[in-house]
Amino acid sequence: MTKPKLRIGLIGSGFMGRTHAFGYATASRVFDLPYQVELTCLADISAQAAATAAAALGFARSTDDWRALVNDPEIDVVNITAPNAFHKEMALAAIAAGKHVYCEKPLAPLAADAREMAEAAEAKGIRTQVGFNYLCNPMFALARDMIMAGELGEIRGYRGLHAEDYMADATSPFTFRLDPAGGGALADIGSHALATAEYLMGPAAGAITQVMGDCVTVIHERPDGKGGTRMVQVDDIGRAFLRFENGATGSIEGNWIATGRTMQHDFEIYGTRGALAFTQQRFNELHFFSGGDARGRKGFRRIEAGPDHPPYGLFCVAPGHQLGFNDLKAIEVAGYLQALAGQRPEPFSFRAGLRIQTLVETIHDSSRDAAWKDVRMEGTPRAPAAREPREAVGA
Amino acid sequence: MTKPKLRIGLIGSGFMGRTHAFGYATASRVFDLPYQVELTCLADISAQAAATAAAALGFARSTDDWRALVNDPEIDVVNITAPNAFHKEMALAAIAAGKHVYCEKPLAPLAADAREMAEAAEAKGIRTQVGFNYLCNPMFALARDMIMAGELGEIRGYRGLHAEDYMADATSPFTFRLDPAGGGALADIGSHALATAEYLMGPAAGAITQVMGDCVTVIHERPDGKGGTRMVQVDDIGRAFLRFENGATGSIEGNWIATGRTMQHDFEIYGTRGALAFTQQRFNELHFFSGGDARGRKGFRRIEAGPDHPPYGLFCVAPGHQLGFNDLKAIEVAGYLQALAGQRPEPFSFRAGLRIQTLVETIHDSSRDAAWKDVRMEGTPRAPAAREPREAVGA
Amino acid sequence: MTKPKLRIGLIGSGFMGRTHAFGYATASRVFDLPYQVELTCLADISAQAAATAAAALGFARSTDDWRALVNDPEIDVVNITAPNAFHKEMALAAIAAGKHVYCEKPLAPLAADAREMAEAAEAKGIRTQVGFNYLCNPMFALARDMIMAGELGEIRGYRGLHAEDYMADATSPFTFRLDPAGGGALADIGSHALATAEYLMGPAAGAITQVMGDCVTVIHERPDGKGGTRMVQVDDIGRAFLRFENGATGSIEGNWIATGRTMQHDFEIYGTRGALAFTQQRFNELHFFSGGDARGRKGFRRIEAGPDHPPYGLFCVAPGHQLGFNDLKAIEVAGYLQALAGQRPEPFSFRAGLRIQTLVETIHDSSRDAAWKDVRMEGTPRAPAAREPREAVGA
Amino acid sequence: MTKPKLRIGLIGSGFMGRTHAFGYATASRVFDLPYQVELTCLADISAQAAATAAAALGFARSTDDWRALVNDPEIDVVNITAPNAFHKEMALAAIAAGKHVYCEKPLAPLAADAREMAEAAEAKGIRTQVGFNYLCNPMFALARDMIMAGELGEIRGYRGLHAEDYMADATSPFTFRLDPAGGGALADIGSHALATAEYLMGPAAGAITQVMGDCVTVIHERPDGKGGTRMVQVDDIGRAFLRFENGATGSIEGNWIATGRTMQHDFEIYGTRGALAFTQQRFNELHFFSGGDARGRKGFRRIEAGPDHPPYGLFCVAPGHQLGFNDLKAIEVAGYLQALAGQRPEPFSFRAGLRIQTLVETIHDSSRDAAWKDVRMEGTPRAPAAREPREAVGA
Repeated sequence: MTKPKLRIGLIGSGFMGRTHAFGYATASRVFDLPYQVELTCLADISAQAAATAAAALGFARSTDDWRALVNDPEIDVVNITAPNAFHKEMALAAIAAGKHVYCEKPLAPLAADAREMAEAAEAKGIRTQVGFNYLCNPMFALARDMIMAGELGEIRGYRGLHAEDYMADATSPFTFRLDPAGGGALADIGSHALATAEYLMGPAAGAITQVMGDCVTVIHERPDGKGGTRMVQVDDIGRAFLRFENGATGSIEGNWIATGRTMQHDFEIYGTRGALAFTQQRFNELHFFSGGDARGRKGFRRIEAGPDHPPYGLFCVAPGHQLGFNDLKAIEVAGYLQALAGQRPEPFSFRAGLRIQTLVETIHDSSRDAAWKDVRMEGTPRAPAAREPREAVGA
Repeated sequence: MTKPKLRIGLIGSGFMGRTHAFGYATASRVFDLPYQVELTCLADISAQAAATAAAALGFARSTDDWRALVNDPEIDVVNITAPNAFHKEMALAAIAAGKHVYCEKPLAPLAADAREMAEAAEAKGIRTQVGFNYLCNPMFALARDMIMAGELGEIRGYRGLHAEDYMADATSPFTFRLDPAGGGALADIGSHALATAEYLMGPAAGAITQVMGDCVTVIHERPDGKGGTRMVQVDDIGRAFLRFENGATGSIEGNWIATGRTMQHDFEIYGTRGALAFTQQRFNELHFFSGGDARGRKGFRRIEAGPDHPPYGLFCVAPGHQLGFNDLKAIEVAGYLQALAGQRPEPFSFRAGLRIQTLVETIHDSSRDAAWKDVRMEGTPRAPAAREPREAVGA
Repeated sequence: MTKPKLRIGLIGSGFMGRTHAFGYATASRVFDLPYQVELTCLADISAQAAATAAAALGFARSTDDWRALVNDPEIDVVNITAPNAFHKEMALAAIAAGKHVYCEKPLAPLAADAREMAEAAEAKGIRTQVGFNYLCNPMFALARDMIMAGELGEIRGYRGLHAEDYMADATSPFTFRLDPAGGGALADIGSHALATAEYLMGPAAGAITQVMGDCVTVIHERPDGKGGTRMVQVDDIGRAFLRFENGATGSIEGNWIATGRTMQHDFEIYGTRGALAFTQQRFNELHFFSGGDARGRKGFRRIEAGPDHPPYGLFCVAPGHQLGFNDLKAIEVAGYLQALAGQRPEPFSFRAGLRIQTLVETIHDSSRDAAWKDVRMEGTPRAPAAREPREAVGA
Repeated sequence: MTKPKLRIGLIGSGFMGRTHAFGYATASRVFDLPYQVELTCLADISAQAAATAAAALGFARSTDDWRALVNDPEIDVVNITAPNAFHKEMALAAIAAGKHVYCEKPLAPLAADAREMAEAAEAKGIRTQVGFNYLCNPMFALARDMIMAGELGEIRGYRGLHAEDYMADATSPFTFRLDPAGGGALADIGSHALATAEYLMGPAAGAITQVMGDCVTVIHERPDGKGGTRMVQVDDIGRAFLRFENGATGSIEGNWIATGRTMQHDFEIYGTRGALAFTQQRFNELHFFSGGDARGRKGFRRIEAGPDHPPYGLFCVAPGHQLGFNDLKAIEVAGYLQALAGQRPEPFSFRAGLRIQTLVETIHDSSRDAAWKDVRMEGTPRAPAAREPREAVGA
């Protein structure tokens, strides 16, 4: 009756690496996970950095050789939180070694690479996950449930946004985020807006079928960190008009020069009988307009997260206490482990990661050509009920 | 030392007709106007309706013949609040009769008509105004002042919205708002979003030079009021990407099927050193992010309208008491009367009305052709200081 | 069928004098009033000031002799907006002359004076009104209707507040507001919090029966305007615990040194089945929690003022456009004129003004004695339905 | 260089027991703690319950005998999250066994018991902590820093609140929270409002010196769970007026029948040059009004939690991502462990717990006697710098 062990290897210990470690620690306490998680090995760029991070984050061992980690027979799952440019090489190596892979978003800078990764994983029966961060919010689950149950009526319109200001300063130096291959605001955070749009709209309105993009570079040169400057070719703001399968329309914007904004991941969804409004700035709230309310008594309701919105109740038995960002990551971790155990389909597989990259690239293409583009359907999430659990890891 | 009289004739007594009457009444008390306003005559579709409205709204006389009103030698200014389709004919008649004309928005369903009206007025030296409703908000003046003074730094991005739900019900009957010539959400309320965008951005970022439109019909048939249905050809949602003269980019949306929304006329403006956020739902507030605030102390400030924001102080000497929608119209009326007296240029002339119609039509064209379109510069507001006061009316 | 004239005399032309003039102007246009209002005469402290104000505000005549105005046979109603210390003398003179009287709040600095005024008016059958400013908000009417209809269930708790910062600066000079007789934050604005409490709670919870006060002077000296200082004896913050007839309890605070606050007139009301929350900072909104909402879908709804909330629709036919402070005064004016015409009881008679002064004084007494005090029931509003319309003025 | 072990014993595994376990797990990952934490033993009411909880929460062993846990030589710290009535007995036993003790709030139902506990701990040199839950918010630290640095000027006024609705339903059965000894809304959650008041005001305004209480029972009978009813003697709403050492005044309210409210732990603080406003409903935000802002540009700023507000940055390197309730508990845990290691004074010792119980009891006494009461100064927090670190645990 003891749980099988699940041995985790983590590559990278930066912002997201820490978040993964926190996620495993919290998920192990909060959820009744199907596994006993062991943080087995952490790889980083130097032995010293890896050792320090391993000690801090509770990993038993460390290494400066990610390939060793990937091929370590005592590792079941490889978590990749290294810079985006390395995702593909690391993931393919891990897949080749038969490891399950949990990779941070974006899966790869280019959709073609993401496709290769997804196909490699599927060919080997590997279970994968891409870290989308925001989708595991209980208020997103509530929104999706309400939409699927028809509480908004027929879905007609969508407006999404992800705006921050971490690149607003023109004197901040050139970084990997600005790399011509796969960089830019649309890819970096507009991708979150796209992921949210399909996650929420998908079950009722279907996938995004067509896009018209508007990707603009605002800061054309950045310091190269060596006393000179380097030209920037990627977008600081990426916008798109959207079409969904059911005919609903919408728009999204990704913007990393939105002065004063730290986490403006917002959406509004309009249906024939109701509407939803949300901002990540207050992500423990969902605002719901019900057309069924009595005359003179209608208005957007501020629903606060509580035990009625699973899995909130596992974190806290009382409403209104609020989850934090790291809690969202713990829910993401738990969902993956449930999928590994065959208890549910993978919630956000590499194919879902490919899907988002496909959307981003199609918007880039549309913007370049100033023309509407059809979105390839590959990676389109199938309906939630359509996938059966498969055999479990470690069973 | 007594003020000259200004004799007003009003055509129409519906929503906007009443608002004009209220505007004159309030402006006459609140402002030190250059004229003694007399509400001389009101025209409506029947003698009975006109008489009733005249009595209620304080007009001395009434008529069912708008042509008589227009040609009445005892009328100085003709206010047109009749349905949009009549604006051109009425305005041209009034201009021909040498009357100054204050016409509700939209100036005309088609830009070509609006151009004819603007040119006719200019050829005769007629002073004109289009009623934009929201632009006279002291918080808009504050926003514009801040932008012009460089308090936001260089302006980079704009996001505008005007969403309501008055057409969300598919069973509501066909009305003039759905007329294929000039109707639709973009023209009806997206036009407000465009007017706000150019009003605020203009002095710093210049005019809108290019647009990419996305205009969609969601409800394809409406009851025709006679037991059948009528096909709808106009947009229920109109979106556009925008380019400004200084290179800034942005977007707007007009949406009249936004379930639950009554007055979501919002904007966000991002500069290099600061940002502004606003919603008409709380139009006595402007939210300002100052990059110059101390570290760890930054955040959007909720500035409440007060005597520091003229002409608020004429309405109320204490801050926080708030103006209402009808007060905004009173400010609009006062600005026009000041222009008639030569104290200032016309704030929102027919040429400004033409400008908005041009933008709407260009977005429609862009949407139809799925291509970026250059916006004709006609009607582009010149810089505020560039126009001198001309001779006064009634001086 | 023409309406009878109602001839108005106004004493004072400051903040509230202007507001009264605006109120008559707006009410005459917006409402179908039972009278044709004539702004007949304005009195102020000098002939020059009176003449200027009369011209600006639309009064036909002016005078520097308020007694002449009060006794002018061509005046039907005397509006008193002079400093508080003069209210009693002016009102008694007007009553003696048989004029109806509309006096700004507070009716008089001392409850004994207010009682004398109320009794004098009642003895002569004079119809009176006290200007409470905030009570005529359609959202207050909505709140009261909801409470009376039992939509909140049984009413249990109340929390009220009126906080501003206009006296927060210790270097601002001594004014009449600081007069030991009747001055202070509780009297000046805490009185609004009390008026709101009884207006909303009254029909369901009954009158305030007992109070425990806490009135504190924070700034003990102020400049006397002559180079010296003057001791302050009145409260800068006045708090009270409250008991209502039905057993409900609550609290209020009046605070004029609340740095940063301009109009924080707030309330929260808790019942067994629902709750209401409101702030005057956004007075076109009422927040309603309905315990009857579905599980997992509950939350405070932001109800926006609209035509479903009379008399909003008379000002604007579309929801969400918002009323301003001066519009609230116009509604107050209209209610008084309807009462003068016998169409309804006086909504806020001198007896209601006495009631508020009684509450203020009892809280002062309680604070001084550090003991709970019973509130004299005089002035307690009778149930809305209990008063029949009397004969009309000008009928 | 390896860290000393700190072996934790937990009594209780309900809401707060789980929160403690989560806190240790998260703190161990997020902070560089001075100890290697081992979750050694968990005690609960039955062997089965204890074993299940231990497995779920990661404790190595379990027991149904809390006395065994307390006397276990392999335990360094005893965490008490059992029902309030057991706190004293358990804590005294742990202290007698020389264990450090971390006890949930309230320390004990009666101040006399809390005093005995604090004195016992101090006599033995035991390091203690009381779990206050909300005080470790980085935004509280920011508020306190701003107040201490004089950014608000001299502190004049305070308004605090803690309102929820978990006892609003009169049909919910009698529980330990209703126990006549130490129960009631003031003790249960008003205590949080008091703790926040002294935590924030203390360094600048000093301790609360006098109180006037108003504690009311609203629901006089509750089901006894056996088919009958039981009389309720404790308060459902507890209010108090406050006096601080520096002369500042304020008020608090604890209310557990506030229909619709889940976590309305709010404060407003007014100084001569600025103000702060906060609600736990959005606890990653602090609203700051700076009187030093430019004219016409003043307003409450919404400061979002970020790396500028330690220890936020340890949880997340990017601003705006937000902490959750369990993160606050992890910060509380970390502070205690730092105190155990002598790195800082105990942030919230049993003496601080005694202090809050003293305030609660004094307010109860005041309410009963309807008289202002002086607050005994015992337990008043000394100034932050006044306590030196003592020898470390496990050094």
